[in-house]
Amino acid sequence: MPISLPSADADIVTAGLLIIGDEILSGRTKDQNIGYIAQYLTEIGIELKEVRVVADEEAAIVSALDALRHRYGYVLTTGGIGPTHDDITAECVAKALGVPIDHDPRAVALLRQRFGGADLNEARLRMARIPLGADLILNRISTAPGFRIGNVIVMAGVPAIMQAMLDEVAPTLRTGAKMLSVTVRADAREGDIGGPLGDVAKAYPGVSIGSYPFFDERSGPNTNIVVRSRDPKQLAAVQSDVEAMLARVKATL
Amino acid sequence: MPISLPSADADIVTAGLLIIGDEILSGRTKDQNIGYIAQYLTEIGIELKEVRVVADEEAAIVSALDALRHRYGYVLTTGGIGPTHDDITAECVAKALGVPIDHDPRAVALLRQRFGGADLNEARLRMARIPLGADLILNRISTAPGFRIGNVIVMAGVPAIMQAMLDEVAPTLRTGAKMLSVTVRADAREGDIGGPLGDVAKAYPGVSIGSYPFFDERSGPNTNIVVRSRDPKQLAAVQSDVEAMLARVKATL
Repeated sequence: MPISLPSADADIVTAGLLIIGDEILSGRTKDQNIGYIAQYLTEIGIELKEVRVVADEEAAIVSALDALRHRYGYVLTTGGIGPTHDDITAECVAKALGVPIDHDPRAVALLRQRFGGADLNEARLRMARIPLGADLILNRISTAPGFRIGNVIVMAGVPAIMQAMLDEVAPTLRTGAKMLSVTVRADAREGDIGGPLGDVAKAYPGVSIGSYPFFDERSGPNTNIVVRSRDPKQLAAVQSDVEAMLARVKATL
Repeated sequence: MPISLPSADADIVTAGLLIIGDEILSGRTKDQNIGYIAQYLTEIGIELKEVRVVADEEAAIVSALDALRHRYGYVLTTGGIGPTHDDITAECVAKALGVPIDHDPRAVALLRQRFGGADLNEARLRMARIPLGADLILNRISTAPGFRIGNVIVMAGVPAIMQAMLDEVAPTLRTGAKMLSVTVRADAREGDIGGPLGDVAKAYPGVSIGSYPFFDERSGPNTNIVVRSRDPKQLAAVQSDVEAMLARVKATL
């Protein structure tokens, strides 16, 4: 299946992330995957544009998958690929993509190496159900594979296994120009610099400038200004303008 | 504005959560709000059905707001209500709801108490821009308020401030029957109990049964089974069936 990568700019590769699991929505399990995947994708040159967390419900999963896979270059999913009845991610991916799903001989062989005889029961064989046409994503921690089909990448929810799968699949992904960023510590309160910072942002519409207040135990309210761009020259220009603006504003405080 | 609470069952109140912020998607900031809000809502009897994380972009925010507010009883948002150019949540809420937005006299008065004279500059006054018809959500930590309009609840992104706002707004929300849960430690590997656990789940279609593998340092691979229901009798019945199933399965291992 050819990979479709809807993107206007050849140098920008985008992704959506779908976290699947009742346990995240009930608060019982605190998600550790969003932050990890966000940082990982940024570092390899894929821009994470949206995250969704949905329950272990077919309609919710299929609908979120469809929204994200048409909108972004890749969709990564975590969760719902284990051996129990609430693990329905693979079936949902097959349904969303309109492809058949069955026990995949390669995945069955993997499981057979690990679980001999009676241990390879129906429940464990669920983990070999893979949509037709998918590539398996092996990993060094668990035997059960994730998989990739088209622009959809399906990984485990357990953080250590997800991370191993991400290491495995990442080199096969198309990546774009990396988003570079520089953080300028303002040594000023956010409200004191908001106006002139907005002027800098207006002057560079293609550059993302974020403002993040924080509290410094010694000096009190402070602000980090994060400038992000794929163009190192633009980045340096904006950083310089931000620093000049800060010097100007602080001279009047 | 009347609160619309789309829900088929009077005893079930649902919510969606919208996390707004480039810094979460870039991985620079690790979200701490999803898990906190998820657990909080569960405890007061509101069922969190979906979370979305979007960038500080108007189109993305408005579209997610519209999807969530029509689908769930409440939408809570975090982030994007500070004094800088990248804080556009209030404007987006006004746009999504089709109401005007301007400096709210109540919010201006609050800010005036805190920031005298020149300190109450245009940037800080941005934090008083509130959609027409909204109720303010005060909080004991920061002066700038959140707000609630219809079924949309807008809070800060800084965890301590968000938590204070949630404490303030929670007593005003309609809540439903609380989701009760019980965790049964299986002392068995997930793959060994997956089949019979699925049979129990099939027998109780109205009860959510989740299976969560974990690794015990002493005894190795293990599984927590989490049964969730609003009906304490159902909960007890399923717990008892799960325990009986576990005893049966483990006797054959």
